Amino acid sequence: MSKNLKKIYFDHSATTPVDKKVMAEMMPYFSYKFGNPSSIHTFGQNALAGVDKARFHTAKFLNCETSEVIFTSGATESNNLAIRGLLNALRKKQKGKLHIITSAIEHDAVFEPYMLIAKEGVEVAFIGVKPNGVIDMKKLKGAIKENTVLISVMYVNSEVGAIQPIKEIGRLVKEINKKRGEKFLKLYFHTDATQALNFLDCDAGKLGVDMLSLSAHKIYGPKGVGALFLRDKTPLDAVQLGGHHENNRRSGTLNVTGIVGLGAALEMLKKSEVEKNNKKISKLRDLLADGVIKNVPNVILNTDRGIATPAHAHFSILGVEGEAILLALDLEGVAVSTGSACASGDLKASRVLLAMGINAEMAHSSIRFSLGKNNTAEDVKRLIKILPPIVKRLREMTKGIKF
Amino acid sequence: MSKNLKKIYFDHSATTPVDKKVMAEMMPYFSYKFGNPSSIHTFGQNALAGVDKARFHTAKFLNCETSEVIFTSGATESNNLAIRGLLNALRKKQKGKLHIITSAIEHDAVFEPYMLIAKEGVEVAFIGVKPNGVIDMKKLKGAIKENTVLISVMYVNSEVGAIQPIKEIGRLVKEINKKRGEKFLKLYFHTDATQALNFLDCDAGKLGVDMLSLSAHKIYGPKGVGALFLRDKTPLDAVQLGGHHENNRRSGTLNVTGIVGLGAALEMLKKSEVEKNNKKISKLRDLLADGVIKNVPNVILNTDRGIATPAHAHFSILGVEGEAILLALDLEGVAVSTGSACASGDLKASRVLLAMGINAEMAHSSIRFSLGKNNTAEDVKRLIKILPPIVKRLREMTKGIKF
Repeated sequence: MSKNLKKIYFDHSATTPVDKKVMAEMMPYFSYKFGNPSSIHTFGQNALAGVDKARFHTAKFLNCETSEVIFTSGATESNNLAIRGLLNALRKKQKGKLHIITSAIEHDAVFEPYMLIAKEGVEVAFIGVKPNGVIDMKKLKGAIKENTVLISVMYVNSEVGAIQPIKEIGRLVKEINKKRGEKFLKLYFHTDATQALNFLDCDAGKLGVDMLSLSAHKIYGPKGVGALFLRDKTPLDAVQLGGHHENNRRSGTLNVTGIVGLGAALEMLKKSEVEKNNKKISKLRDLLADGVIKNVPNVILNTDRGIATPAHAHFSILGVEGEAILLALDLEGVAVSTGSACASGDLKASRVLLAMGINAEMAHSSIRFSLGKNNTAEDVKRLIKILPPIVKRLREMTKGIKF
Repeated sequence: MSKNLKKIYFDHSATTPVDKKVMAEMMPYFSYKFGNPSSIHTFGQNALAGVDKARFHTAKFLNCETSEVIFTSGATESNNLAIRGLLNALRKKQKGKLHIITSAIEHDAVFEPYMLIAKEGVEVAFIGVKPNGVIDMKKLKGAIKENTVLISVMYVNSEVGAIQPIKEIGRLVKEINKKRGEKFLKLYFHTDATQALNFLDCDAGKLGVDMLSLSAHKIYGPKGVGALFLRDKTPLDAVQLGGHHENNRRSGTLNVTGIVGLGAALEMLKKSEVEKNNKKISKLRDLLADGVIKNVPNVILNTDRGIATPAHAHFSILGVEGEAILLALDLEGVAVSTGSACASGDLKASRVLLAMGINAEMAHSSIRFSLGKNNTAEDVKRLIKILPPIVKRLREMTKGIKF
């Protein structure tokens, strides 16, 4: 790669750079506003004011009360806390066997806690998805039992970008609770909204969720901070115990700079801003998707643009390993992913793609582009120029080799 | 307070400002090195290089292997992970009832997890301390039983600054394990070193610990990041599940900037630097302690300087509520604490002080000064000038009132 070429980042689902406005909001809390928000003195209260402002903006984004926001170290902690915290609280009250429903395409931060809980004797149903990556609502409805206490379905799948029918599930949960009445177990609804924040309405009331996980570093905020929306009166046992922070729901000195950064990042996600970015990113994504389809033979676009975020374009480039393309593009200064960054060290075929009915070979030849607000048409054009010869060369190298 | 007066911070045990050198190390990872360290491309690998460097410096500080370092969101998470993670792992192997020993003066981030574990049926012994705040070694030795699997004792108490005999306990644990041999349960040793990092040797081998918790924001690093030293072969079940980060011991996208900041803060704690700071801080602390004793009648210095960090000076100022002094000093631009910042909203008398045999009234009239490397003799002199009239005024106001 020529050293003068601009580096191009098409991996915004893995993480995003911190926006300058977010950084500017955070900086004072590293220096003169450095206090511990639990301290009574002015240093502490100045830090607390920053946290309070961030909590206000988080609540505004979710259209909820500030008391319904719990700050965490990220979406992984939020998911673990939601699942483990609710289950531990319910188990104390309800002696019978509990049943939980989730999807087959959740992020590992939801999938793994459920796998552990299943080992502990709670029954967990993993609902499949249709070929477009959207959960099968018929199967979901059919799986609900009298002792189902929790449904977890992610808002947007991180790999192909498929948007899940959260509002529809929310309505279903509401209906079921109405039927169950006061006497029976309540059914709770959790969504991991990490990949949706940049693009979709996250009004907790409209979605009908009781718990919603979010993270700052996917929305141009810092890493190491996230939040859990917890609807008032939703039972939850703290997982991390100590100084009784966050209303006894999550202990540990508040990560003030991180929380301020999260608040600032969410504040930037105003409806008008989101609409503008969606329009721009969607155009670029279509330019990219159409360009790749036109210029690279034997590719399959696994992202169904009709039901996906504007940012995702996930391909299977037949006959080539995804990782080989990733590395070749990286040499040209272009960053893409073969799937979830969290599992990128993993050579197993993606559990999500297999659930969509994509076979192992196609899964192995997949590449994910996830666009962001700083991408330009020039970025996309360069990609369309350099990708076809890379694919051609790799296909020639691996001709006849089964991988 | 005159607006021109410099603000004075005497609450370094609660938190510290981020050092400029630490900030400089962190900055690139907010901007052009923003990648997700799990990503294979250059953006990801650049971020990973920062994490690797920080892991190297953390391991160097602890004199351990880099594989023995688990990055967390702070000391509270480290403590919870150490206790819960070890216990969960041991419970799978050992069916008999387990026994744990800890001190009566631990931070809530250790105390609370043990209280929960005790409710779950594990026997937990809370060992008392001598009037100087140091654990009673005779009682500790006497409490060890055949089924004792874990001892947790903090390195330095955060309230009065009393240093605990960690090396001595480490040697004891080693002897016991030698006697027990291969056939019996192993005894593990955990210390929360959060308040010790700035002042004391934290060589994990010399201390003889299997687990050690630490935090960045007490050592001029950022909030929201910490680490757990976990000696090779120490059993541990992950608490936070998801993307298999940190060798399957702690999942969640790595907080790159925080981790880089932690590494930089630990790198600054070179032996020569620590000795220089200790000398300086110790002088200031003595100036402060002696000045307060000389100029304020009826005060008791609860910090035994012979066995405490150089930074702590914890007083009971008889007949006045600590909080009233704190607020009065705050109006003069001077920040102090009445105890642990984490519990500062709490009006109960400090559990730690009560354990030291200090009565409730004295505990309520306590003020903690914790000095840092940026304090000056002028800071201390100003405090000595403004404190006596404040105490006099408050004593006159509350004359005859029992609180």
